[in-house]
Amino acid sequence: MAERQDIHPSVQDSLQRVTELLHKHELAEGHAHGEQGPRQELVETLMHKLHFVELRKLLDALHSADIAYVLEMLPLEQRLMVWNLVAAEREGEILLEVSDAVRETLIAHMDERELVAAAEQLDTDEIADLAPDLPHGVIQGVFKALSPGEREQLRAAMSYPEDTAGALMDFDMISIRDDVTVEVVLRYLRRLDEMPDHTDQLFVVDRTGRLEGLLPVNRLLVTDPGTPVTAVMQPEPVKFHPEEKAQDAANAFERYDLVSAPVVDGEGKLVGRVTVNAVMDYIREETESDVLSAGGLREGEDLFASVWKSVHNRWAWLAVNLVTAFIASRVIGLFEESIARLVALAALMPIVAGISGNSGNQTITMIVRALALGQITAANARKLFAKEIGVSVLNGLIWGGVVGLFAFLIYRNWQLGLVMMGAMVLSLMLAAVMGVAVPLVMQRFGRDPALGSSVMITAITDSGGFFIFLGLATVFLV
Amino acid sequence: MAERQDIHPSVQDSLQRVTELLHKHELAEGHAHGEQGPRQELVETLMHKLHFVELRKLLDALHSADIAYVLEMLPLEQRLMVWNLVAAEREGEILLEVSDAVRETLIAHMDERELVAAAEQLDTDEIADLAPDLPHGVIQGVFKALSPGEREQLRAAMSYPEDTAGALMDFDMISIRDDVTVEVVLRYLRRLDEMPDHTDQLFVVDRTGRLEGLLPVNRLLVTDPGTPVTAVMQPEPVKFHPEEKAQDAANAFERYDLVSAPVVDGEGKLVGRVTVNAVMDYIREETESDVLSAGGLREGEDLFASVWKSVHNRWAWLAVNLVTAFIASRVIGLFEESIARLVALAALMPIVAGISGNSGNQTITMIVRALALGQITAANARKLFAKEIGVSVLNGLIWGGVVGLFAFLIYRNWQLGLVMMGAMVLSLMLAAVMGVAVPLVMQRFGRDPALGSSVMITAITDSGGFFIFLGLATVFLV
Repeated sequence: MAERQDIHPSVQDSLQRVTELLHKHELAEGHAHGEQGPRQELVETLMHKLHFVELRKLLDALHSADIAYVLEMLPLEQRLMVWNLVAAEREGEILLEVSDAVRETLIAHMDERELVAAAEQLDTDEIADLAPDLPHGVIQGVFKALSPGEREQLRAAMSYPEDTAGALMDFDMISIRDDVTVEVVLRYLRRLDEMPDHTDQLFVVDRTGRLEGLLPVNRLLVTDPGTPVTAVMQPEPVKFHPEEKAQDAANAFERYDLVSAPVVDGEGKLVGRVTVNAVMDYIREETESDVLSAGGLREGEDLFASVWKSVHNRWAWLAVNLVTAFIASRVIGLFEESIARLVALAALMPIVAGISGNSGNQTITMIVRALALGQITAANARKLFAKEIGVSVLNGLIWGGVVGLFAFLIYRNWQLGLVMMGAMVLSLMLAAVMGVAVPLVMQRFGRDPALGSSVMITAITDSGGFFIFLGLATVFLV
Repeated sequence: MAERQDIHPSVQDSLQRVTELLHKHELAEGHAHGEQGPRQELVETLMHKLHFVELRKLLDALHSADIAYVLEMLPLEQRLMVWNLVAAEREGEILLEVSDAVRETLIAHMDERELVAAAEQLDTDEIADLAPDLPHGVIQGVFKALSPGEREQLRAAMSYPEDTAGALMDFDMISIRDDVTVEVVLRYLRRLDEMPDHTDQLFVVDRTGRLEGLLPVNRLLVTDPGTPVTAVMQPEPVKFHPEEKAQDAANAFERYDLVSAPVVDGEGKLVGRVTVNAVMDYIREETESDVLSAGGLREGEDLFASVWKSVHNRWAWLAVNLVTAFIASRVIGLFEESIARLVALAALMPIVAGISGNSGNQTITMIVRALALGQITAANARKLFAKEIGVSVLNGLIWGGVVGLFAFLIYRNWQLGLVMMGAMVLSLMLAAVMGVAVPLVMQRFGRDPALGSSVMITAITDSGGFFIFLGLATVFLV
């Protein structure tokens, strides 16, 4: 697939040329609509066509992934103009490469016939990746065009949930029988025009299709042709089941530096393979969605999405935030009398809430990461609690001392300083306990601790910090 | 290197067995220190030894990456116990696999001789990866043990800054001359016992060492042996320079689904290669450090670091946060008189600051991501500003309406509700403008916009939100 041309250093250049050509085209169009003689109009039209021809040539020379990159960066109108110039037989591949948000905009401007044609150029596992974004009619159309074997593959590929090894799987593997020699394998391979991408090894199966071992392609080259396959293959390879978590597969790829790995069903029969490029894409998407959700976005946003779409995408987290802010506001409301008597409390309270929020987020970041790596067990959880509480007490004394001094210097009230310090220690301890507990509890209830942990800890440290500080102040100062 | 044993599904089991054995060992030790007859003591000592023997056997069967995983999860004392049982010839590999924080704890407990021995088992590019953590004397010792060619490689590998393609590079490539036939290549390969990991292609060079093209190993298998290498090689491959940004190399690997790629110097001479496993490790480390710094941690923390070490690691961000909190506090201080007259302001002000902080973080997350992907140009930056301001005004009216209503319902004061709403619109606009501007300015001044953008926007929206809300209230209400 991937024609390795020397395009990598020049993607930026290509993008610049695309935008230049689009710009010229726009200028030409602007002129064409102005007042002018028929002859000038003709010249403009020719110019206009010339830019299109040049643009099309430029696009044809680009790798599909690079065209995807260019499409991501163009505002909607220009994006569709470029999309119309892309050769029809490359549309499927490019749709696979663009982000979900941009894919939506492209698909919305294609009719069913075009979409079926684009999907048909892809492998079944790739069609399955695209399927959630395709209208039902298109999928039906694609099904009709497939062979019975491919239909079976597509049905299987579409049946695996997004976060399973099955969703990462492709069917482009070469499998060989275990009762042949290396020579037979070499002869078989020579009959193929080309091996599938990422074929670093062949899969050795018995007559029923059960996976017996792996035969690295590199070993084929250094082995005597008369050797039986079973003598050079690696038995007991790392293998996955389609229902297995994609994250576990990704971890195995990283840990054991794999390029490809077999997928077997419950009976040990080879059903597909996972390659490192599918794993890289998965890792990228996962970390991206973690970053987005940590930033309060529901999903990746087309840079040039309409204002309305953006508002929609950001709605949910703002609403959650509003609720937690209302709660914090009512906590403060409880102590309005105290604040009215000692207005310094209003100015100081955000410090306590802010620092404990920050500290709680530090703890939670560490715990969420350790959970993702599977590093937390029942045995070490208690040690972690103890450590985090130790850290929070030490931090509370240090930073509480600083803020207490700050309060004293500004308001010349040493009792206020002491209350500040006490509140810092207590609310940092709260942040530490909840910073460990929140992700553990979420995990226990089967939820992803990376999603929403930060919002929850901030809500707790805000309301909790206000309550502790204003409560202590009410008891000791007012 | 990577022996592909069927260890992947059983890492969790192994960990459990390791901890069980350690636990038994501890129990045995506990007994041994109790009061008992000499015979019982002997039994305990034997038990104790047995556990060690069993543990060592278990460790020998594990992949280095899995031992690293186990070490990460053990508290310091047990970790060192296991470390002492690891076969000496695997120590180098394991040191490479563990996290920086855990590596430090292991290195701290090895003497110079052990460290030199461990490093000597590694390839030069791997030694270079380890070098920053090794005492100077160890590096000297390793240098002495290397051949002149390897010394040159190590010196080169150590000279590339962390974020360059050169730092990802290894020297395990097979290069062939461009004036031979496929048959010669096959004969040459057969003389090798084994090809290096991730050898999906050979590098074709001319007599001066300049890279001419790539010869995929898979193509060797399907090509007639009489064919000249130049007829089957891929000319003009994707290649990198050692000084190039590692991120660009990683992007190219993802985009073009590469397994390996050549690195050439300024004259086009082949100096090394980058493989997909180095890229995956790089991506993992990058996203990890982004996540950590977003959570306010300076670097990865050993789960069982001492309280003191943790406090140290988290110190910097808490200090920054404290300064911004102090500033926000002084902004509120400016309006203490207004608050004393209308104490509801104290309860309502965190809502304005909180929501605009959240909204600003949404904007900044999107912009930082787009910058990392190279999607923002001078041409589209203005469009982005316009879009984000549009979103903020719409959000301001929607959420401002909600919080205004909230304020009215609680305090029965419609002017207060209107001020709330106005303050929301203005501070969301501030968040939008700064959410776009802060990362762009950081980028312009050559700083990584992913680091600290979030802290900065929160500081701005806190102080700004308080100022806008309390300012409007002072003008219109008090």
